[in-house]
Amino acid sequence: MSSLLLTGIGHLTTNDGDPVRDAVVAIDEGLITYAGPAADAPETEGREVLDCGGRAVIPGFVDAHTHLVFAGDRSDEFRRKMAGEGYQEIARSGGGIQATVRATRAASEEELLDLATERVRRMIATGTTTVEIKSGYGLDTETELRLLRVARRVGEELGITVRTTFLGAHTVAPDLTRERYVELLVDEMIPAAAGLADYCDVFVEKGVFSVDEARHILHAASEHGMKARIHAEQLTRSGGAALAAEIGAVSADHLDHATPDDAAALAEAGVAAVLCPGASYMLRGSQAPGPMLWDAGCTVAITTDCNPGTSFFESMAPIVSLAVVQTGLTVEQAIWAATRGGALALELPDRGLVTEGGVGDLVVLDAPDPAHIPYRPATDLTWRVIRSGSVVDGES
Amino acid sequence: MSSLLLTGIGHLTTNDGDPVRDAVVAIDEGLITYAGPAADAPETEGREVLDCGGRAVIPGFVDAHTHLVFAGDRSDEFRRKMAGEGYQEIARSGGGIQATVRATRAASEEELLDLATERVRRMIATGTTTVEIKSGYGLDTETELRLLRVARRVGEELGITVRTTFLGAHTVAPDLTRERYVELLVDEMIPAAAGLADYCDVFVEKGVFSVDEARHILHAASEHGMKARIHAEQLTRSGGAALAAEIGAVSADHLDHATPDDAAALAEAGVAAVLCPGASYMLRGSQAPGPMLWDAGCTVAITTDCNPGTSFFESMAPIVSLAVVQTGLTVEQAIWAATRGGALALELPDRGLVTEGGVGDLVVLDAPDPAHIPYRPATDLTWRVIRSGSVVDGES
Repeated sequence: MSSLLLTGIGHLTTNDGDPVRDAVVAIDEGLITYAGPAADAPETEGREVLDCGGRAVIPGFVDAHTHLVFAGDRSDEFRRKMAGEGYQEIARSGGGIQATVRATRAASEEELLDLATERVRRMIATGTTTVEIKSGYGLDTETELRLLRVARRVGEELGITVRTTFLGAHTVAPDLTRERYVELLVDEMIPAAAGLADYCDVFVEKGVFSVDEARHILHAASEHGMKARIHAEQLTRSGGAALAAEIGAVSADHLDHATPDDAAALAEAGVAAVLCPGASYMLRGSQAPGPMLWDAGCTVAITTDCNPGTSFFESMAPIVSLAVVQTGLTVEQAIWAATRGGALALELPDRGLVTEGGVGDLVVLDAPDPAHIPYRPATDLTWRVIRSGSVVDGES
Repeated sequence: MSSLLLTGIGHLTTNDGDPVRDAVVAIDEGLITYAGPAADAPETEGREVLDCGGRAVIPGFVDAHTHLVFAGDRSDEFRRKMAGEGYQEIARSGGGIQATVRATRAASEEELLDLATERVRRMIATGTTTVEIKSGYGLDTETELRLLRVARRVGEELGITVRTTFLGAHTVAPDLTRERYVELLVDEMIPAAAGLADYCDVFVEKGVFSVDEARHILHAASEHGMKARIHAEQLTRSGGAALAAEIGAVSADHLDHATPDDAAALAEAGVAAVLCPGASYMLRGSQAPGPMLWDAGCTVAITTDCNPGTSFFESMAPIVSLAVVQTGLTVEQAIWAATRGGALALELPDRGLVTEGGVGDLVVLDAPDPAHIPYRPATDLTWRVIRSGSVVDGES
């Protein structure tokens, strides 16, 4: 691993105090060894030097909520939904999540790996350096394990840190009763997923899984070494956030309908608030109360929620735009939430900041100020992506 | 000029009837000579062949409303606006449109050309093949003419059709009364702009220009050979749309607050309804009533409105997303409005469609269906851009 020196940084977001102007960052053996004013920088001798020419540098994006391992194409369903066709009608004609489950079950591990690799490649090319990937389109033991293996392999092949989450409890498997499926999750799928998944997640929502079912499932997961995440308060106020606080989950995700009580409980329990602005946008719904969650003291993360049904976003920059324009976070809050917030939501304390000892994951923007990310939402501003101290994408 | 044959088109949007599956397009001397089923296609011999491998093809985007010639950086103002700072406060501290006017007046013609060229390059790289460019950041004769010359030169340098619009009536020049500025527009600036501008545009809005002032200005423009466009009903219902119908303007633009009466009048008078979804998004306002305008029989176009104050969008694809998700156009309507609608709004009848005799401007998407454009709003799906029958962008 080489020794890299970034010079000529016009605006450095460290996520540790104010931005530094005219900054330098040194990365040795993948870790940041210096980040600060050019005046105090280490010598260039013996290091590869990348002159940033006054550009802004931010930590690499940490995308803490994705469902990016799947097969099939639901663009026509999107077309019909946008033209006003209802959820029930689409489900009756074979659409919805079950369409993705059928296509994903039918796909081989190599096919899924190819599809997922292409998606993560596009994410890396636009500045994402760490990603969480959930299963959840198998809904049977064999396919769910396949998805988790693929998630791990993507990370190995592309040299990017992947955190995996078992989301068998995404919806009830076709042809099973809910009771039977919860039994299957607890007795067979969770024990089988242990070792492949860092976390277990449950979609708590009216008509999907109840708070009691989620408690039961996540208790079983905990016994197999998986910490909890919860899809909470997305479409309605479901009680998922309160459960996340009660059991000390790592995160409560979506939170579009979270209340001030929910926010206080999450902050008190140290549960990260992981927002999915892309899904709220695509569903024409209301955005999560980001400023309220932030002000309550929650660790707020923003994520692509990359999935084929409700948020097919393969880049974090437009998510920063949505978080600022629609959610109402400030530019600085949104960039923090897309980097440091994501890292904390994935329990990776050495990511998402540019300080001594941190992992050398950075994005050099082709802009003088990171405010350009939401200010110019249609422009890919990625100039260079640096992963563990190596430039991974030569040209944007 | 070469002879190009696009084969293996999985989905061809012609804007003349249903999409064609398994299609071929032939372009000779810059014009389309065949567009239809592969079975009836002309011979490949003697032509350059581009195998699209099942990808979707659409007409090149026609961006019928931009303000892309300007200098300066207002990203910090964007940061402050998003954090809640008011318009008055920003104007008092030197921000707003007058900040762009100061920076633009101070920039040389070559500096402005460089900036504008970079912007149009990014537009072409993401599929735009025809663009309208307004002046409006000079507000004095000399600078307005400079902006119009730059607009023309950008088109010549990049080989893209540019339609120019004189928008001296963007706002009142600093240090002049409104009466004096209208006089200056009519007596000096419009006569000087004749020959450099295809159109004349007026921002009709409370506190900017009134309907009567706009009528006066556009009458003078008409006497100097410039047809009318009007910024209408953007922030409030200002009467601009009714004026556009009354005087037979080529387009009424924005229309966020247009009523059914406005829509009927525009449709009856044959005035194009040019929407700017990016500005509505960035201003956190309401989108124009796109479906209502469409159903009233208006020619609807969607555009970036690329400008440094309210809509710094440099690509049409996210505009298609906003038009579908927020404005409520169907996928097909939005793609028509971004191509054929734009062409008609610029009086270019041979653009924005893929039929015999049309200009050979096409985008090959790295997707099997154009619905992927709004379905995957964070992904640049441009695979190849073809301008007058030549591949202008080798790799995306």
